[in-house]
Amino acid sequence: MGATGDRRERIYPSDRVTLREVGLRDGLQLVKTFPDSAAKRAWLHHEHGAGVRHFEIGSFLPPTRFPQFADVRQMVEAVAALEGGHSAALALNERGAEEAVQTAVGEIVCVVSATEEHSQANMRRSRAEAVGLVRRVAEMRDAVAPGKIVNAGLAMSFGCSISGAVAPEEVLRLAEDCLAAGADIVGAADTVGYAGPRQVGQLSAALDRLCGNRPFILHLHDTRGMGIANAAAALDNGARVLDGSLGGLGGCPFAPGATGNVVFEDLVYLCETMGFRTGIDLTGLAAARQVAEGSMPEDVFYGALAKSGPPQNMEWRA
Amino acid sequence: MGATGDRRERIYPSDRVTLREVGLRDGLQLVKTFPDSAAKRAWLHHEHGAGVRHFEIGSFLPPTRFPQFADVRQMVEAVAALEGGHSAALALNERGAEEAVQTAVGEIVCVVSATEEHSQANMRRSRAEAVGLVRRVAEMRDAVAPGKIVNAGLAMSFGCSISGAVAPEEVLRLAEDCLAAGADIVGAADTVGYAGPRQVGQLSAALDRLCGNRPFILHLHDTRGMGIANAAAALDNGARVLDGSLGGLGGCPFAPGATGNVVFEDLVYLCETMGFRTGIDLTGLAAARQVAEGSMPEDVFYGALAKSGPPQNMEWRA
Repeated sequence: MGATGDRRERIYPSDRVTLREVGLRDGLQLVKTFPDSAAKRAWLHHEHGAGVRHFEIGSFLPPTRFPQFADVRQMVEAVAALEGGHSAALALNERGAEEAVQTAVGEIVCVVSATEEHSQANMRRSRAEAVGLVRRVAEMRDAVAPGKIVNAGLAMSFGCSISGAVAPEEVLRLAEDCLAAGADIVGAADTVGYAGPRQVGQLSAALDRLCGNRPFILHLHDTRGMGIANAAAALDNGARVLDGSLGGLGGCPFAPGATGNVVFEDLVYLCETMGFRTGIDLTGLAAARQVAEGSMPEDVFYGALAKSGPPQNMEWRA
Repeated sequence: MGATGDRRERIYPSDRVTLREVGLRDGLQLVKTFPDSAAKRAWLHHEHGAGVRHFEIGSFLPPTRFPQFADVRQMVEAVAALEGGHSAALALNERGAEEAVQTAVGEIVCVVSATEEHSQANMRRSRAEAVGLVRRVAEMRDAVAPGKIVNAGLAMSFGCSISGAVAPEEVLRLAEDCLAAGADIVGAADTVGYAGPRQVGQLSAALDRLCGNRPFILHLHDTRGMGIANAAAALDNGARVLDGSLGGLGGCPFAPGATGNVVFEDLVYLCETMGFRTGIDLTGLAAARQVAEGSMPEDVFYGALAKSGPPQNMEWRA
């Protein structure tokens, strides 16, 4: 399969489900308290102890504007020190990408809006320019750090807070453009939580056909309570990489008080009930949650499993 | 189709999804404050205004032990006064059934445990005796009130708090026994919230085969966060009647602090995103929720949609 396929297969094995914990990145976008570096490292260590291996831990952004990610380099090092740990961080412009390729980060995440309106309003650039950045990042990676994964996340893939409905053909075309530009993996994000399971199932099946033997990510939010149902639909339709955040941290900028990312703990439980082994221990995850909660006393941690625990008197696997 | 089929088809039309609001019954099993009759009638009226037609409103039980259902007869009358309103109430023994058939209640709900252990521990009778009560209720209905629906709910259908795993064959055998005993409709209940979507999908498909042109109910709880995913799997596999409770009221006796029934508002949204018309207006439902919350200030109302609202700038149907 060549160097590119080797890299992908090593980080995202095609024969199992991979869960990416994005709490330390997406989860910290809208919280009241930013945990300090020591608290973030404790969170990491506990999750690693529970079996989590894929961590999205920050953005290469100006620390003056995004103080929660000022320690992104230290977080990259912290993940690198964990056995089997894989770190991902966002690079939203060329300067960020130049910084990222110089670090030990395992994966550089670029964001492309699925709609022109959101791309212009949020990123002040066209979608074509955003795909151009994916190409630049892949070129830098090839030149400087060939082991790194380049991930292109397609924001607003299931509906846009500005322009409303999004045609799946647009998402698929952009996914194809990103792969052609050198991305190893693309992801469809329900950034504002508009999706229902039928829609997620249909786009997942189409992405599965488009991506062939390459993996793709579903980044789902629980803004309207559909997060776990959407994840189940994605898994039923070929998705094998899903994002979630510890306690569902993350919120939604367009719906104050609404829930954020899919709750990671509940996502692990879902996968296990569906017969997908995650390698993640829910008791260990509960300990990580306690650590994280202790460092963010003003923030609400969501999730049903944290209150109930899994069934104690039966094997809860499919 | 005969009188029996006519009765079923009128109350549970086979060409659409029917949502049963069980908040006024199952929802009030574990709450801190019991709303008074006036508050319950206001709740009913607002939900009816929003398009809800199927209400489970109480149990025919001794009012001294179950004060929250002391007004079950008045609630039956309140639903009967609503255009198109259909009331359901539990009868857990012969005395309750004798009372129920004398009222205007539209549906008498009997409960049969899926496991012998739970049946003995919770109802102090065997499953065979519980099926016998279904037969007695159907006979009373035939003799006294032939328009009424007899509903047999199978508790612990997806796992039992006492005996653990439950074989689907047991549930199907009991469902068949209940139909043979004269039930119009059977329901599989995830009483303690053990189920995942694969399991729910498989049992729904099997019930669909068993029931033929007769409807069946999925009564799902959200104890472990799988409620909406389980509902989606049920709908994907032939279920057309689902239960939920306003704000997810109900809790779980075996998991203090855990969430209860599937949140009715989120369930309506799920159905609509999947292309099933419910006839229920979410704005009206939000008003009903406010009324109910006002009458139960100490209780937690769950649900994501109540915080976010549906997408405002796109048609959110599948």
